[in-house]
Amino acid sequence: MSRFFSEKYKDLEPYAPGEQPRDQVYVKLNTNESPFPPCEDVIKACAETAPTLRLYPDPDCRDLIKKLSEVYGVCEDEVTVNNGSDETLNFAFMAYCDEGHPAVFPDITYGFYPVFAQINGLPYEEIPLESDFSIDVNKYKGIGKTIFIANPNAPTGIALTLSQIEEILVSNPDNVVVIDEAYVDFGTESTVDLIHTHKNLLVVQTFSKSRSMAGARLGFGIADKSIISDLNAIKYSTNPYNINRITASAGVAALNNESYTRNNCRAIIENREYTVKKLKELGFACTDSKANFIFAKSDKIGGRELYLELKKRGVLIRHFEKERIKDFNRITVGSREQMDALLERIGEIL
Amino acid sequence: MSRFFSEKYKDLEPYAPGEQPRDQVYVKLNTNESPFPPCEDVIKACAETAPTLRLYPDPDCRDLIKKLSEVYGVCEDEVTVNNGSDETLNFAFMAYCDEGHPAVFPDITYGFYPVFAQINGLPYEEIPLESDFSIDVNKYKGIGKTIFIANPNAPTGIALTLSQIEEILVSNPDNVVVIDEAYVDFGTESTVDLIHTHKNLLVVQTFSKSRSMAGARLGFGIADKSIISDLNAIKYSTNPYNINRITASAGVAALNNESYTRNNCRAIIENREYTVKKLKELGFACTDSKANFIFAKSDKIGGRELYLELKKRGVLIRHFEKERIKDFNRITVGSREQMDALLERIGEIL
Repeated sequence: MSRFFSEKYKDLEPYAPGEQPRDQVYVKLNTNESPFPPCEDVIKACAETAPTLRLYPDPDCRDLIKKLSEVYGVCEDEVTVNNGSDETLNFAFMAYCDEGHPAVFPDITYGFYPVFAQINGLPYEEIPLESDFSIDVNKYKGIGKTIFIANPNAPTGIALTLSQIEEILVSNPDNVVVIDEAYVDFGTESTVDLIHTHKNLLVVQTFSKSRSMAGARLGFGIADKSIISDLNAIKYSTNPYNINRITASAGVAALNNESYTRNNCRAIIENREYTVKKLKELGFACTDSKANFIFAKSDKIGGRELYLELKKRGVLIRHFEKERIKDFNRITVGSREQMDALLERIGEIL
Repeated sequence: MSRFFSEKYKDLEPYAPGEQPRDQVYVKLNTNESPFPPCEDVIKACAETAPTLRLYPDPDCRDLIKKLSEVYGVCEDEVTVNNGSDETLNFAFMAYCDEGHPAVFPDITYGFYPVFAQINGLPYEEIPLESDFSIDVNKYKGIGKTIFIANPNAPTGIALTLSQIEEILVSNPDNVVVIDEAYVDFGTESTVDLIHTHKNLLVVQTFSKSRSMAGARLGFGIADKSIISDLNAIKYSTNPYNINRITASAGVAALNNESYTRNNCRAIIENREYTVKKLKELGFACTDSKANFIFAKSDKIGGRELYLELKKRGVLIRHFEKERIKDFNRITVGSREQMDALLERIGEIL
């Protein structure tokens, strides 16, 4: 830190991304990446767009917005695109939280939420999950604050139903409710259709997981057009060209092949159910994950210990050194081969 | 704007990027893009990286940082990379401005500076350029504020010398001085070497102009490692994966072919001098631009009128509806063919 750094950031605790090791080739199950490559059309679109890089991107991303609106059945002015869903979430914290409107989210959820609040100098509150890691919807009803809920939640994978989310929306008519659907494509019903009846709903999604495009950085928000207009005002006041040309065209290509995405999601779900069954046979407790990861606790070995032992054996999973969940690990659902490698190593360790 | 939008943004005036028309093919001289494609290695790197998009990028961008440090003769911890230099600039406003440290910059400069201040709720002051659009260095000496200077300046193209910038640095030892060198490769001496003697200097550059990569979104900052550490703390608190995989590998490829960049810059400089000479013959007054654009005023036709007449004829230049410069236009220096097309249309109009 320099002596010039503004006092307002003196307590800043930046987000710690999952490890990106380069010293050996791991079975990498620590950052919820897809085991499948992006579809062929995406790869082709990248190569075809590269020669045009001398030109700025279209800041309005019109082709991409049009395609997203078609795929999600909404109007073009109900969609915004950003440099990863992290950016959409950051903009939502900026737009809808202030001294009179604190942010509120579960104590165990995406670890970036408190960081977004801190970097923007915003008050926030954490509501503890129940002892089974579920969200008690009653604790969010009529709370009069700006609500952020990952659905399914991370790192637990547990999802709320649409009607539970509607209860939260209806009881907080004067506050924005952000539903972060990064993992929605692996078995949870999306709230996108609710934007027409609930003007206070902002749905955030990403191309990182189900569309195998974590490396392209593409996230989007869907909401009433007045909310999209707020988020775009912030985008045009920080970084109007936030989506590069290649990512924009790759996004369109991915959306042109939704069956590829659906097939991959189906395979991930099958691998998840397969792995959960095997882990339970090995004595693990697993949450009812609807995401592309498993949240699991062994009855024989501590969470940190298992993480370290697996790392020694070339398998990388994610451990969070946080009081309530330190016995657990988050394990990305990869290919069947990766899951079998994981299970074999766990067998060795136990 | 929604009824939920935080009061703090009620006066927000987002930045207006240059037009990106799609209704016809223009001779596009309005956003300072390079007329040359990115080098072949960049195009190849994009195609080769596309199949790996399922993986997150390296948030530390180690390969790119290493290459930048080699090319610019600095240490790796003296470099940070961002999603366009706009993001580096935004982070600098966040990091080094607050109530006690207002931002200060010329009244006529990159139009995004006041927007960065506004979006972050920061006080700022504009110091008028002299009547010839030059910067009077004395007005920045010992000012005790966080200084932002584009060198060469935009849209005037006029550059300060290294010794003038050193005077500003030396006389403001307790404040950060940001030198925005977006256009430095077209004939201005860079301040990069000064970072070792001036711990309060942050140099910001971009791949958009001289490296023909506006569409890839890649900017960087060079400064003492303590300043880089501040900027990275902000990056890791907003969007750690701000550089996508393809842009990162394209950046390395571009840096591996610096002679391509230098040759292109030389051609742009030649075309600039050629065009300025021709414009002067047509009665234009031109500033002494050291950038890849010309800032010119006709003695026969108003700035807005010329802009509109050229647009009708398929040539797009940039007009700013701002009191002191409304008789001028900013004209990107393109290929010789584009410059001749421009000159021919101007001849017709006059």
